[in-house]
Amino acid sequence: MGRREEYLADLERRARLPAGFSSATTSIEFVPAERPAGSPYTMNLALVTADGPDVVTVGRTTRNRVVGAPVVITRRNLAGGTALIVNNRISNVAAPGGMDDAETICRTVAAELSIGERNVLPASTGIIGWRLPVREMCAALPDLVRKRANGSALPVAQAIMTTDNYPKLASRTVCGGTVMGVAKGAGMIEPNLATMLVFLFTDLRVPRGRLDEFAEEAIATSFNRISVDGDQSTSDMVIVMSSGVIEPPSGSDEQIAWALSEVMGELAEHVVRNGEGTRHVIRCSVCGAPNAELAYLVGKGVVNSPLVKTAIFGNDPNVGRIVMAVGDALSGDRAMAIGAGAIHPKVLSVAVADRIVYEGGVFHLDAATEAVLSDALEAAMMDEKCRGYPGNDATVDIRIDLGGGTHRTEILGSDLSYGYVHENADYRT
Amino acid sequence: MGRREEYLADLERRARLPAGFSSATTSIEFVPAERPAGSPYTMNLALVTADGPDVVTVGRTTRNRVVGAPVVITRRNLAGGTALIVNNRISNVAAPGGMDDAETICRTVAAELSIGERNVLPASTGIIGWRLPVREMCAALPDLVRKRANGSALPVAQAIMTTDNYPKLASRTVCGGTVMGVAKGAGMIEPNLATMLVFLFTDLRVPRGRLDEFAEEAIATSFNRISVDGDQSTSDMVIVMSSGVIEPPSGSDEQIAWALSEVMGELAEHVVRNGEGTRHVIRCSVCGAPNAELAYLVGKGVVNSPLVKTAIFGNDPNVGRIVMAVGDALSGDRAMAIGAGAIHPKVLSVAVADRIVYEGGVFHLDAATEAVLSDALEAAMMDEKCRGYPGNDATVDIRIDLGGGTHRTEILGSDLSYGYVHENADYRT
Repeated sequence: MGRREEYLADLERRARLPAGFSSATTSIEFVPAERPAGSPYTMNLALVTADGPDVVTVGRTTRNRVVGAPVVITRRNLAGGTALIVNNRISNVAAPGGMDDAETICRTVAAELSIGERNVLPASTGIIGWRLPVREMCAALPDLVRKRANGSALPVAQAIMTTDNYPKLASRTVCGGTVMGVAKGAGMIEPNLATMLVFLFTDLRVPRGRLDEFAEEAIATSFNRISVDGDQSTSDMVIVMSSGVIEPPSGSDEQIAWALSEVMGELAEHVVRNGEGTRHVIRCSVCGAPNAELAYLVGKGVVNSPLVKTAIFGNDPNVGRIVMAVGDALSGDRAMAIGAGAIHPKVLSVAVADRIVYEGGVFHLDAATEAVLSDALEAAMMDEKCRGYPGNDATVDIRIDLGGGTHRTEILGSDLSYGYVHENADYRT
Repeated sequence: MGRREEYLADLERRARLPAGFSSATTSIEFVPAERPAGSPYTMNLALVTADGPDVVTVGRTTRNRVVGAPVVITRRNLAGGTALIVNNRISNVAAPGGMDDAETICRTVAAELSIGERNVLPASTGIIGWRLPVREMCAALPDLVRKRANGSALPVAQAIMTTDNYPKLASRTVCGGTVMGVAKGAGMIEPNLATMLVFLFTDLRVPRGRLDEFAEEAIATSFNRISVDGDQSTSDMVIVMSSGVIEPPSGSDEQIAWALSEVMGELAEHVVRNGEGTRHVIRCSVCGAPNAELAYLVGKGVVNSPLVKTAIFGNDPNVGRIVMAVGDALSGDRAMAIGAGAIHPKVLSVAVADRIVYEGGVFHLDAATEAVLSDALEAAMMDEKCRGYPGNDATVDIRIDLGGGTHRTEILGSDLSYGYVHENADYRT
């Protein structure tokens, strides 16, 4: 069995939908109105329905000021959402007639399921600006509704992929029930497609207010702590649905919250690791900050610095760039407003792969250290040839101590490679 | 005559130092303490002295919280500065003993010139964290001081280069005198080396307060309006020196300010255009903003978006990403605090190469538009093979109208190419 098959077999073992959910997927072919001359495109459709008696749905959507029609509708329908209809290939963002198109799809799904139009949550991922092939999509919906079942969610994880290298699925059993989730978003390539889509399902009954709280916390320490290229998409969404089939024992809150965090954390790391472009995952932990926001700004500054990212891609332990990025992050207006002025370069310390490289205002570098760091970077490099499975589970660890407080955070990012440029220079062909 | 020779001949015609200045350059070889095993490195030294009776020097240095020893000393010595000593190859940032090293060099220059140690402004560019070869540098200084002359500044522009593809020099004659400048900083590759160095020289007498004001204005509309990869270096500096030899006619202020702006603007555009990585220069103008800062945030957001940059590199008119980047820039905390909330996606418009591609909340795209835009991108692409001269003087023009006010700005940026990753993945070898 190859590594791809092993990975899929492993996912399959954890892929069963929680009780009270069913799903189906299909593919259609279409010719985009915007490129009428070319060969047909393929689009996947995935449908997940919560069939329980007491469904609770919560979620978060992108903060980008320009959003796709599906985001507008999903925001409006969120509280009553019992069905998810997802397509890849076209994101339906600012396309002429985009709202009407999305509404037509919701109406058709609702009619086939005999539910209200307002119970349908649409999500689209792919090219911005193009129109959905509504006719072809609607024609496929009756069959999609008919064939859904409470089986494996792996086909859903696969259907929502665009340039994702491998499907992303995670689950935890907790309090007699299950929390499972699928995600779409291909590391550095993700915002490319302008979408990170994350769907979590649980059969555990959780009151709306509490589910919303758990989701908020879990997102804050997972998807809000990854950074690929600093671009926030027009379609990002994280949806959490409870079918309410299983009543958890009282006092389970903490465990359910933990399971949500675990599932989101695992999916978030895969979003960074995924994608042809990513060769190293960077884990930047920042401690000693006077507040959480400053820790976050510094961590983001380091993992988003193109100079740090390219050096790591090249297995070049150019630690000067890390310190430059920290200094730059600390000099920003916002950073200065929240206490960066009190952080002195002399109290900063920076470690890479557990070796202190900067402390007391100077670098601690020599040929031996450089060799150790180069080796550590090389060891964390993913196999370029992995197709359909994650290249490894290693990270390049950067630890920054600001020496100015007790707050800390951890940010995951990716390097900047030829593969990223390649994927993104000509994405739409 | 090849294009490189034509370019150099053209610079040479404008390269004569203003009255009251003299310069000299030299090269040394050294073995870095941090890489004792390899072959020797070459370092250039450049010296410029203002020999006039009434020298006035003003300048600005990086806001990065971590700065090199030369920046610390130059800040301290700025007001009395009459001599500039510049080296490439090593930036002397956070190197052990870096302050002592820089002071030793200043002391040696001062002794040779018979001026005060506090009259010397040091500047270093290159690798962060390594030590300067002080012994070899000091040994070369007596000869450097001896051979300086009021001739061409082109050797200075060449000596301060690191991975710069071509020397950058600009000048204007104004009010009977000259404003000329040289710059170092290789487009996307520049912060790589962690340095943009800019030195302007004029023989016109300008009182300190006014020269400082002119410099502030000129920097604001030139170097503060370019963005390469969002990283601000530990060594950036812009120094303006007046030798005071020529008394300008009264009422010349506006013309002198104009000349400074012109020279800095020309140098700033070359900093973006320069460097192996850059294949397109992006000119993003933002109008209709409720204030200048919001225009700036949006423009920076667009030219810094890796997704916009890679698409432009690939000559792919993926205008969806531009709108995504605008929406993302408008959603930031700072943007929202200064009025972005009042900008509605429906009033936004975006034009690329003078063609409206987004207006009234929807894209205006069809196969014909795509073809026109692709052609425009291709036409603006620089020849990859240019070595020693700028590849062209074209720009990719993006025009964003926020429809919410009267403020405007213009930001220059560059695309993101394989060349950038290549240069930066293994810069130090």
